[in-house]
Amino acid sequence: MISILPLDRAQPTPLYLQLYEGVRRAIINRQLTPGSSLPSTRDIAALLDISRNTVVNAFQQLIAEGYLETREKSSTFVNRDLPETLLSAPKISGIAHPSPEKPALSKHGQMMATAKAHQARKGNKHNIFTNGVPALDLFPFDIWTRLIARHYRYAPLSLFDETVSPQGYLPLREALANHLRTARAVKCDAEQIIITSGSQQAFFLAAAMLLDPGDKVWMEDPGCMGPRAAFISHRADLVTIPVDEEGLNIEVGIELAPNARVAYVNPSRQYPLGVTLSLARRLKLLEWAARANAWIIEDDYDSEFRYSGRPLASLQGLDTTGRVIYIGTMSKIMFPALRIGYIIVPRELVAAFTAARGAMDKYPPMINQLALHEFMTEGHFNRHLRRMRAVYDERRGLCEDALNAELGGLIQLGTSDAGMHICGYLPPHMDDFAVAEAAEQHGIEVLPLSEFYLGPTQQHGLILGYTGISPDYIRVGVQTLAKVLEQFV
Amino acid sequence: MISILPLDRAQPTPLYLQLYEGVRRAIINRQLTPGSSLPSTRDIAALLDISRNTVVNAFQQLIAEGYLETREKSSTFVNRDLPETLLSAPKISGIAHPSPEKPALSKHGQMMATAKAHQARKGNKHNIFTNGVPALDLFPFDIWTRLIARHYRYAPLSLFDETVSPQGYLPLREALANHLRTARAVKCDAEQIIITSGSQQAFFLAAAMLLDPGDKVWMEDPGCMGPRAAFISHRADLVTIPVDEEGLNIEVGIELAPNARVAYVNPSRQYPLGVTLSLARRLKLLEWAARANAWIIEDDYDSEFRYSGRPLASLQGLDTTGRVIYIGTMSKIMFPALRIGYIIVPRELVAAFTAARGAMDKYPPMINQLALHEFMTEGHFNRHLRRMRAVYDERRGLCEDALNAELGGLIQLGTSDAGMHICGYLPPHMDDFAVAEAAEQHGIEVLPLSEFYLGPTQQHGLILGYTGISPDYIRVGVQTLAKVLEQFV
Repeated sequence: MISILPLDRAQPTPLYLQLYEGVRRAIINRQLTPGSSLPSTRDIAALLDISRNTVVNAFQQLIAEGYLETREKSSTFVNRDLPETLLSAPKISGIAHPSPEKPALSKHGQMMATAKAHQARKGNKHNIFTNGVPALDLFPFDIWTRLIARHYRYAPLSLFDETVSPQGYLPLREALANHLRTARAVKCDAEQIIITSGSQQAFFLAAAMLLDPGDKVWMEDPGCMGPRAAFISHRADLVTIPVDEEGLNIEVGIELAPNARVAYVNPSRQYPLGVTLSLARRLKLLEWAARANAWIIEDDYDSEFRYSGRPLASLQGLDTTGRVIYIGTMSKIMFPALRIGYIIVPRELVAAFTAARGAMDKYPPMINQLALHEFMTEGHFNRHLRRMRAVYDERRGLCEDALNAELGGLIQLGTSDAGMHICGYLPPHMDDFAVAEAAEQHGIEVLPLSEFYLGPTQQHGLILGYTGISPDYIRVGVQTLAKVLEQFV
Repeated sequence: MISILPLDRAQPTPLYLQLYEGVRRAIINRQLTPGSSLPSTRDIAALLDISRNTVVNAFQQLIAEGYLETREKSSTFVNRDLPETLLSAPKISGIAHPSPEKPALSKHGQMMATAKAHQARKGNKHNIFTNGVPALDLFPFDIWTRLIARHYRYAPLSLFDETVSPQGYLPLREALANHLRTARAVKCDAEQIIITSGSQQAFFLAAAMLLDPGDKVWMEDPGCMGPRAAFISHRADLVTIPVDEEGLNIEVGIELAPNARVAYVNPSRQYPLGVTLSLARRLKLLEWAARANAWIIEDDYDSEFRYSGRPLASLQGLDTTGRVIYIGTMSKIMFPALRIGYIIVPRELVAAFTAARGAMDKYPPMINQLALHEFMTEGHFNRHLRRMRAVYDERRGLCEDALNAELGGLIQLGTSDAGMHICGYLPPHMDDFAVAEAAEQHGIEVLPLSEFYLGPTQQHGLILGYTGISPDYIRVGVQTLAKVLEQFV
């Protein structure tokens, strides 16, 4: 018994746990065989020089877990019902590998495993050209934290229980509907909005709901990673459509895949090129969708930051046929790690999308929905948005000026009337991947445009984020970039 | 012009927006046709008796959105590139319905639309018999809020940006691994843990990764709704397996579906019956999975609350072949609306599951991961767990005593050595749905056992939650239930 159960008083593990584990192992290894009787707890205690209580505790656990059983009052046996052939670890692992391979992943799973929806930003100290990062140092975390604390203190406790709809907190949906009607000319009411765990969940949800394996999807090329990963995960057939200064080329789309099931599009501001889908193209896209019986997924990720005039009206607001699914995010105006986004669907799809969203992960953490609702209705949201619009406009101006001054000949700037980045086009002989890599060695995070092409690269360039960078570092950042580019001339 | 543009100074909408909207509508309706020229901004201002600036603002927006264009310096035209045939709303909606129906949902989407993963609790004031609700009034929200506020104040800002891995915050995964190794005998390290948005996302993720349409899944019957919804969503073929006092009947499983791809099981405490999977059955299940090249999904949802001895060791800890996927939740120890759960997968699946999880919704809100990590490492988690174990044990005792005293003949109580509810079996002639409905009219929320059967109902009963109810209301709750049951005798 002592040899089977080497107790070690020096270990932090309590003795009764050591005893439990020792007996358990002895049974699994068949040193103690089913039906064999054990000494009384009193004898074991004496034998091992421990308190009887310790032995009783261990035995109770072993009985509860089915290793031991008691028959008459005081005698304890190894459970006779244990299937002897199955005990002993080597035996189990012997049976375990009739074929050496593990059961494979599903086809869906195999595709999902290839998804690159999220590449964690490396982050650089001054966010020099870091793409899509808001000016987090200017976010009113004090106000936000106050709202969070207030709701933890005063909100009805039932809101922290499962009384929540997967569609999301109704007052938040109402505040959002108000905002989107005014700011984005979206035609919707709260009933059509489903709050998601970021826009990525909205893409994934839309893909799951709309796409069968092999279905064709029009994808802007170059284009976004996240939605692409969602569609690929559902084994859709992505049809790459070129983007020119008027946005997605609808004619080419119709030529290449007239019967696509979904067109994914950034009408307000194409990512990463920054161009706007022209009105003529918008009308053609809507007309095609109606004719082809297809859905349009409008991803409106950062167009609330427009630096002259109001943000451009959404495509969804122009649609009269209920074929546009509108997706937005709080990551840019609030902060990315908040993980709140939304999807707006035609009325007749609300029930289906809500049920599906519930099957995916129920609903986003309630506290953030409560606080965000108040952040919006108390005016902090619009105030912060207005403030950031001015801040980003200034940074954009400084970046453009510095880039033109230092790199005028080498880099040609794309449009930047909105959003959070400029696309800087490189001369055709410059490999943007190599440039990005060299820049990283100088502590600068620029994204190569080539990375965003699903088809062959049409243009080399750099995605230059300007929203997270403090004005003090713009010139030095641009000068560093100039030094990097000199190597490639 | 004035008839096209009826401005209304009484409206809250700014005049320039009214003007913008009026011109936009006139173009869409073809009251203004492509190529036609507009009066100068000065003339319009005079005509409508508004400031010229207002007109300029409206025109700038209309130009930006492509409705208008300027050719020579000062003249403005309706954009000539607008496809005339596509303009005018009636025309668009005319084209829109060549076939009256909308494009259908995908097959996956159609199944997801039927999912009933989440039924919002109605909630009753005293949580009388409400199922699965923790004693939220005893949760240390003050400590929790302090941790949240501290991290918003002092955590590096980069943690609120996209620098996070979809696998989750590493220190939290480490704290969890420590907890689960000790408390649940799970064999894992932080590297195998993926933080999810609640256990529902873990079920959904596992279903997506492991199941192709038509694959068979062993399901305990009666059993849980959430995982069932996840598997049905992925068009799996659910095979219902009876549960007896030893838990899932493995022999029946082998008989009905020897080649199932997944077995879903609650070994520690079966939901809703409360029984434990016997050791003999555990060994047989592992042996079958090895032989059949199948996966086992272990859902360990509330067994941390065990009222005598330690929690029972997990099935995962007994597995030597890496076929068990372990899923847990923070909803019971913390609170449901926190939406944090976890999935522990064999090492070789970590990369695939992490990529897939990223495609679904990136990662859960960072602040909750940061605060939960500290809540665990500072000892609040274990302290709260210990405290709740005592509180729930007391409530359980009071409930059982009251139920036996008031309803001794009518209701037969199942095991309640762990967890958050008791299953009270009703006589065969009593319809538990009808009882639950009648109880609801008396303000009591009991779940009918029948609801949890996928196959034919084998036993009628009531799921009686006792964790959220304050001791003061236990007797009155039981008396009310007795009154309800009297109608059915």
